[in-house]
Amino acid sequence: MSTAWTSRYAQRTKGIKSSAIRELLKITQRPEVISFAGGLPAPDVFPVARFQEACRKVLEQNASMALQYGATEGYEPLREMIARHTERYGIKAQTENVLITSGSQQALDLIGKLLINAGDRVLVEAPTYLGALQAFDVYGAEYVSVPSDGDGLRTDLLETPLRSGPKFMYVLPNFQNPGGTTLSEGRRHELVLMADRYGIPIIEDDPYGQLRYEGEHLTPLVVLDRENLRRDNGYSIGNVIYLSTFSKTLAPGLRLGWIVAPPDVIAKLIQLKQGADLHTSTFVQIVAYEVAKDGFLDEHVKLIRKVYRERRDVMLEALQQYFPPEVTWTRPKGGLFLWVSLPEGMDAQKLFQVALKENVAFVPGDSFYARNGFSEEGKRHFRMNFSNAKPEQIREGVRRLSVAVKQQMEQLQPARVG
Amino acid sequence: MSTAWTSRYAQRTKGIKSSAIRELLKITQRPEVISFAGGLPAPDVFPVARFQEACRKVLEQNASMALQYGATEGYEPLREMIARHTERYGIKAQTENVLITSGSQQALDLIGKLLINAGDRVLVEAPTYLGALQAFDVYGAEYVSVPSDGDGLRTDLLETPLRSGPKFMYVLPNFQNPGGTTLSEGRRHELVLMADRYGIPIIEDDPYGQLRYEGEHLTPLVVLDRENLRRDNGYSIGNVIYLSTFSKTLAPGLRLGWIVAPPDVIAKLIQLKQGADLHTSTFVQIVAYEVAKDGFLDEHVKLIRKVYRERRDVMLEALQQYFPPEVTWTRPKGGLFLWVSLPEGMDAQKLFQVALKENVAFVPGDSFYARNGFSEEGKRHFRMNFSNAKPEQIREGVRRLSVAVKQQMEQLQPARVG
Repeated sequence: MSTAWTSRYAQRTKGIKSSAIRELLKITQRPEVISFAGGLPAPDVFPVARFQEACRKVLEQNASMALQYGATEGYEPLREMIARHTERYGIKAQTENVLITSGSQQALDLIGKLLINAGDRVLVEAPTYLGALQAFDVYGAEYVSVPSDGDGLRTDLLETPLRSGPKFMYVLPNFQNPGGTTLSEGRRHELVLMADRYGIPIIEDDPYGQLRYEGEHLTPLVVLDRENLRRDNGYSIGNVIYLSTFSKTLAPGLRLGWIVAPPDVIAKLIQLKQGADLHTSTFVQIVAYEVAKDGFLDEHVKLIRKVYRERRDVMLEALQQYFPPEVTWTRPKGGLFLWVSLPEGMDAQKLFQVALKENVAFVPGDSFYARNGFSEEGKRHFRMNFSNAKPEQIREGVRRLSVAVKQQMEQLQPARVG
Repeated sequence: MSTAWTSRYAQRTKGIKSSAIRELLKITQRPEVISFAGGLPAPDVFPVARFQEACRKVLEQNASMALQYGATEGYEPLREMIARHTERYGIKAQTENVLITSGSQQALDLIGKLLINAGDRVLVEAPTYLGALQAFDVYGAEYVSVPSDGDGLRTDLLETPLRSGPKFMYVLPNFQNPGGTTLSEGRRHELVLMADRYGIPIIEDDPYGQLRYEGEHLTPLVVLDRENLRRDNGYSIGNVIYLSTFSKTLAPGLRLGWIVAPPDVIAKLIQLKQGADLHTSTFVQIVAYEVAKDGFLDEHVKLIRKVYRERRDVMLEALQQYFPPEVTWTRPKGGLFLWVSLPEGMDAQKLFQVALKENVAFVPGDSFYARNGFSEEGKRHFRMNFSNAKPEQIREGVRRLSVAVKQQMEQLQPARVG
């Protein structure tokens, strides 16, 4: 079929496979399936009335601008709002430090384009966000994986990987996807110091930072960055590029994310974004600005926290109630996911097949490991999302899943004895 | 500044410069400047009331879907509508042949990603769309440029470039950007036959095809593609990938374009798009579908044709009235642009500086030539847009421009005599 094309595909596309999650999501879209697989926000918390009001206002007062081509760097008031919002966490960003992207995923693609030559190593957590691996894979990235535990990336294992000369490191410090873990304050200091010592820049991906359900907000890496201390040039961003998004606080269907970086890095990223999609939808940017402004976003995030905290608690309780004691899981303090560890000998991929028969779904762990990066570990793990399903579905889904788990464990027992 | 980053930029970004147009547009945004520089649609024809109605309806009836993550390939009813619409021109596309992109610009980026290895040659028209050059540059494209005349790309000069083994050719057959010219029916046949003979795939970019102000629609390359004749497998697309967009018919601020290609090419592009931005805004896609459906788009395009035809005619008349006879220009049968040729010895870049003092702007021609691709030709040309300014502004702008032209010509005379 179409050999005219397939024989012409560029080298970089040879290894690209469709995301396992993407294929899984298709299977799990059957209405009888309770899915913990996707990373979907709850549609019941979308601020629909506020969107209606914003669309009405934007099209009434500002249609010529909202429907027209716009600047590649983004809608100025939105960039300014994001800079202000970011500053709250101690990051002294100004409008010129902010580039609007078509979702955080585009930020990862642009960063891959900007930094990765084929064969360059990228230091990642094991496990890590699979969308980042997909974005970096295209540019021929190789990976150095550093294991994490309940306190996030293990900084005690960081020295050798840093010495191997990675181009940059990619870290999700808050409520990590898929682990649900948060990098401790102590490790944040260590990470930033070590990165600085070895001159390795950091990409700090923070899609979930605002969705904290308990405890205090920890200092972003970009703030800890020692470069800051040496600078006094109007922005405090040196060795760290910071990413975030409206996908988890307003709505993922907008595809609105952003990059906070020094102006010279932003300038280069603008050039790359121009070639990639000219700019992000002006209409979406102006509507999002109208929705978020005047403190609405802060109020709305409180509601999301309340709803997701409850769902997390329901899932944790149900896991406690239904799952056998040999199975363990993380207790995330925020975000959308928790990470389940199965006893040795069990296989999350096989469990997934059994679970589907019970009409419940999750994502097997192996997708979240870089090639050759502890991917065997993936077999014993899977990711569960607690933001999308309603509490009663969560309870029922965990019950169904426990049936599948117990079934697979029983099959395991005789094999061991034998 | 930020040497931690600049020393780490990937090879592919070294040569990337900000688009000249982008920089120009900034200068030309002063309110007293009449700008023929951008490729902006007229905001007065944006169907604002229809957008208001669509947003209201989508958020009332379909918010959970419109604000949520969606499929990478795009919103199914929109893909189906585009396939149906495309079929009208003889292209037997089905839903599975259509990938929704974040503007046509993303289509070009994904095609570069899919097909170009560093050093690969891409066959382009001289002049051509500079956004395509920007998109392909990043992947390390080299170019083979083929000159065009009033009938589009000169197929009589195509054989040697085709023999040099380009990876693919990129062509805008209708009302080309920047030339405003249309590839004649005879040359279309020749082009497709020759491409087929040498096994060189074609990217057919058709953003303006529907904006024809006189004459009959000519057959798309994808329809002429001889591969079609040999196939009977449910889709008629072989050697040609076809691109189009809503930017010129609905609104560019949406950032909605599409690729029509064989299913196996679409499958590969979906994987690349997933890594690039997951998917195009669900909200924008569903709203655009609601706006365009039930024949609205066809009716609306009639209005756009009427408005732009008038503006083209006003510009042509004004050029005739004000410009000295040594200057010539194309007479486009559609689209947004015409292309002005200056007498030998004149320099469009220098003219631009003079024109700015007269408060009128255009884009000097050199931006539209690939590196080493007849770029000297660019000095004698510039692009003028006739869709954005109102008729009275067009007249006044051309008058101002003629002052600048005459001024530069006068400076030229003594130099020649001397």
